Amino acid sequence: MKIITVNREFGSGGRELGKRLAEELGFAYYDKEIIDAIAEKSKLDPAYIEKAIEDGVLRNYPITFSHTFSYMPIIDSPATDLVSWQSDVLREIASKGDSVIVGRAADAILEDEHPFKIFVYADMDSKMKRCRERADTDEKLSDKELQRYIKKIDRARASNHDLMASYRWGEREGFHLFVNTSGIEIKTIVPALKEYAEKWFSNFRN
Amino acid sequence: MKIITVNREFGSGGRELGKRLAEELGFAYYDKEIIDAIAEKSKLDPAYIEKAIEDGVLRNYPITFSHTFSYMPIIDSPATDLVSWQSDVLREIASKGDSVIVGRAADAILEDEHPFKIFVYADMDSKMKRCRERADTDEKLSDKELQRYIKKIDRARASNHDLMASYRWGEREGFHLFVNTSGIEIKTIVPALKEYAEKWFSNFRN
Repeated sequence: MKIITVNREFGSGGRELGKRLAEELGFAYYDKEIIDAIAEKSKLDPAYIEKAIEDGVLRNYPITFSHTFSYMPIIDSPATDLVSWQSDVLREIASKGDSVIVGRAADAILEDEHPFKIFVYADMDSKMKRCRERADTDEKLSDKELQRYIKKIDRARASNHDLMASYRWGEREGFHLFVNTSGIEIKTIVPALKEYAEKWFSNFRN
Repeated sequence: MKIITVNREFGSGGRELGKRLAEELGFAYYDKEIIDAIAEKSKLDPAYIEKAIEDGVLRNYPITFSHTFSYMPIIDSPATDLVSWQSDVLREIASKGDSVIVGRAADAILEDEHPFKIFVYADMDSKMKRCRERADTDEKLSDKELQRYIKKIDRARASNHDLMASYRWGEREGFHLFVNTSGIEIKTIVPALKEYAEKWFSNFRN
């Protein structure tokens, strides 16, 4: 299976890029669907799961990947279960077919699938502009507050990513292509990214 | 004019990528030609100039960009002149037509031209493999020595770049596209990069 993972700075348009790239390639696209699938497995509230995975709750809980390393009774920790549900769901997705997966540490969890890993970022002005346009943040936020909010989300994403990965969020060596979307209309660059991704995969499948 | 600058880790294939991209786009390609042009202006030895610009001699000299800030007699410093010759040559190149320029801090010196800035990198194994294949390093070097050599060149490139730029060599915010060439045959990805570059420019020229 061909898996493309998209990690992104908040406000960089990474989600749009991932969605359009999936459409262009005819790949399945996963984003919120991952949360819903975990909710089904766990019977937890989707809003709680999203918060835990994306917004930094996880790092407040003990995490373990193997009971042999545990030094306290973490078996019942909801966060540990969440990590394992998250992995299960991502592996199921990866086994179903070619897909683009945005966020959720899929780049790290699906490492063995040899995914093509894209990191999307932009300068602060562009990110603020995009947030204002999409109106996905409180419109009453001042520029300074919005900047703080963007940085806070990114710190949480980085910290949750780094719990699961052997490299840091946004670290050069961990990813295959870094796309700076400052001043760019996402849809204009997607066909080139499609071609790049196809050629990238074909380098490892001959 | 459309300017594409390519910064690259030693052994990542950035030079080949730049050259092929220029061919594909029909842009002029500049690399060693820059050294020759500076040699002509300065009457200095090309080998000395290349060493000074690429291999880290510059940082051992006082550098100034404006005499109003100088506190010592640097007017006769060969390194200061070299910086100014380097800028002159790069500006002349940029005024002549669309071009791809590899290295030489062109990304920083030509900032006002709003260049499309690519950073090319790879993991250490790929870089060592590429160096061995190109035989552009001493074949008698052990793996450890070759790694040390690669890292040394990159440190010098970073240090010379950072003298001229407002951002660090390889820093996310300073560049527009980061291309990881690990395991990739460069020529396979060049058409996609061509299309990406064209679309990137068209976003700023409407």
